[in-house]
Amino acid sequence: MERIRSVELAAHVGRRARVMGWLASVRRLGAVTFVVVRDGWGTVQAVVADEARLAPLADVQLESVVEVIGHVVGEPQVELHAPEFRVVSAVTQQTPVQLAKKRLDVPLPALLDHAVIANRHGTRRAVFRIAAAAMRGFRRALDADGFTEIQSPKLVGGATEGGANVFELKYFERAAYLAQSPQLYKQIMVGVFERVYEVAPVFRAEPHDTARHLSQYTSLDVELGFIDGHADVMRQLERALRGIFAELAELTQVPALPERVPEIHFTDAMRMLGADEPDLSPEHERTIGAWAKQEHGSDFVFVTGYPMAKRPFYTHPDPERPGSSCSFDLLFRGTELVTGGQRLHRVEDYRAALEARGMRAEPLAAYLEAFAYGMPPHGGFAIGLERLVMQLLGLPNIRLAALFPRDLTRLSP
Amino acid sequence: MERIRSVELAAHVGRRARVMGWLASVRRLGAVTFVVVRDGWGTVQAVVADEARLAPLADVQLESVVEVIGHVVGEPQVELHAPEFRVVSAVTQQTPVQLAKKRLDVPLPALLDHAVIANRHGTRRAVFRIAAAAMRGFRRALDADGFTEIQSPKLVGGATEGGANVFELKYFERAAYLAQSPQLYKQIMVGVFERVYEVAPVFRAEPHDTARHLSQYTSLDVELGFIDGHADVMRQLERALRGIFAELAELTQVPALPERVPEIHFTDAMRMLGADEPDLSPEHERTIGAWAKQEHGSDFVFVTGYPMAKRPFYTHPDPERPGSSCSFDLLFRGTELVTGGQRLHRVEDYRAALEARGMRAEPLAAYLEAFAYGMPPHGGFAIGLERLVMQLLGLPNIRLAALFPRDLTRLSP
Repeated sequence: MERIRSVELAAHVGRRARVMGWLASVRRLGAVTFVVVRDGWGTVQAVVADEARLAPLADVQLESVVEVIGHVVGEPQVELHAPEFRVVSAVTQQTPVQLAKKRLDVPLPALLDHAVIANRHGTRRAVFRIAAAAMRGFRRALDADGFTEIQSPKLVGGATEGGANVFELKYFERAAYLAQSPQLYKQIMVGVFERVYEVAPVFRAEPHDTARHLSQYTSLDVELGFIDGHADVMRQLERALRGIFAELAELTQVPALPERVPEIHFTDAMRMLGADEPDLSPEHERTIGAWAKQEHGSDFVFVTGYPMAKRPFYTHPDPERPGSSCSFDLLFRGTELVTGGQRLHRVEDYRAALEARGMRAEPLAAYLEAFAYGMPPHGGFAIGLERLVMQLLGLPNIRLAALFPRDLTRLSP
Repeated sequence: MERIRSVELAAHVGRRARVMGWLASVRRLGAVTFVVVRDGWGTVQAVVADEARLAPLADVQLESVVEVIGHVVGEPQVELHAPEFRVVSAVTQQTPVQLAKKRLDVPLPALLDHAVIANRHGTRRAVFRIAAAAMRGFRRALDADGFTEIQSPKLVGGATEGGANVFELKYFERAAYLAQSPQLYKQIMVGVFERVYEVAPVFRAEPHDTARHLSQYTSLDVELGFIDGHADVMRQLERALRGIFAELAELTQVPALPERVPEIHFTDAMRMLGADEPDLSPEHERTIGAWAKQEHGSDFVFVTGYPMAKRPFYTHPDPERPGSSCSFDLLFRGTELVTGGQRLHRVEDYRAALEARGMRAEPLAAYLEAFAYGMPPHGGFAIGLERLVMQLLGLPNIRLAALFPRDLTRLSP
């Protein structure tokens, strides 16, 4: 007898069906017992009026893997009547975290210690389905715009993007480093395909224990050539987000993304804030977010023209505003969500930028080769998948947006 | 004036169009000069009858980034007439590898040293477009079958899958290792979503310098629950390959995949080969490949039932054939392409398997937790993306299937 998935059961009303999954809950209400079975996609309730039918379940705990064969009824909901149970894999002890309730009411450390089990809970599955849909939507949007997906090296010979926060490893007889981002490679690949994206892990030896940092996260990276300026990159980011939100709309409520996200220049933001620091504080970002909501009715706002001093060496300066860069942050509800901008594209500009920052050109020889042999004006951005999911769902800690998060102390599960 | 991509130019015949890209070749034939410009998708030929029009290109080398505005004609092919050139980024020296010829005639070490430039060649771009299409086809096939994409940790606390070939790194105050595969995590995730896949880098400290090994490669991993046996995994692999080949068919000639790939049991193969080793040599694999071609007209053949002794601890034994496993290799034209099989799913079977192999259970505590709390019969497989591309295209070295390959000596570009 074919196995029917929970989400397909509605098509089998009036027939007998075989369901398989995990024993999710057993509730007795007077003479009737409701047995809920969870499979990879949803849950099915089996209604047991005849106590004897429960016999196979007598000695097993929740999360046992079971088969249920029953009569599918459609009213008041799709459920199985007169079910026959068979245990496939018996569980003999209580789970370390309770999964049977609607809410997963477990302190964060316990949830992370037992993520292997806790991730089975409906609320956790919803988060990771959303993460999967975000990746899918991102790729679809970029595929449609003629981008090519790449896979770049995660093992690199030098801590090329700046020395801090990099993991070092023993690479045969020498030292190597884990790539902090695919930045240099995605730029190089603009010379090959013009438009590239990558969805891959990046690694940051983040020495601070915060609710917003992981030492491994999934970066959704984009780079595109032949732009007129960073505004083209912002338009591409809007299209990528639109693709993501289109996929997410089936799973959760998504914020409204304006056709054109409002923007404010860093200098104007500073004036508005009455501040004169070279960087935005979280408090500043919240204020700008509130301004965008009030003035433009938008949860999103671009802050453009960050000071060059606060941006990496490959950032393109604004030729019309000395000290300002052709870069941007996208804030979502007052918190940074995405960083991007236009990059330098002339090899002589790179040499000058490295020298001005006291950085050596030699470790970047392969990177500079791309620019010595013809690169167009280009730019890009990177979306942290876990941060995106955290902010969209309002999760209190980024660890809740990773299947098995990695931080200062956590290497398992 | 809007920029037109090379591949869209046919829709602009009879009009003026603006093209941007890299100066790919300049050929003089009598009074006419043919200038080929390459963009991210293809090439465009500009036909120059009036020598004066070449003036802007007089002092620049190939690979300079240029703009061409010309009249689009459709006969004898789509090309630009009376072109006006403008240099966007000038290249002032010859490229380290010659890109102008149809063939990229460069020794492998030079090609890899200058991959940043060499990857711009048409033959190299074709390889990486095929890799991208393979990933897309893989995901589409699995999405259609109800799989959920996951991103698992690449930093792990123990060399859990066996100690050899693992990279060690300094993780804050302790040691960590780079994951050799997502094997343990994808199995754990069967407990969450039943069906999962991952496309991500894996790391092997491969101490041998061969034409078939990389120290980082892209693994296309699949795991699915509620199987009746390893045959269900083989059927899923066939569907995944069919999805990949459907995407590739637009780009290259793909091998015919039989509706049901023929299979031979390891024991029967050994009998046919007149051999009695516990493993297949490359010579054996070639013979089995030839047999499949001759007997079944198939480039593909499953070898099932490998000896348990040759498979990892999580492999499910064949209850009907002591010493044999419920695992398989898929051979393509006589060479291993994919490995997969059914896994153990009962925690007591894991404990026994680890003990029998003299392995400690403690480093696998989180993994074993999944099995202690209910896991269905399950299995999966992993396709090495670079190996797949190498074998499909008949590349002589796997390094040619990676954008920027990593091996014993190579950490750059």
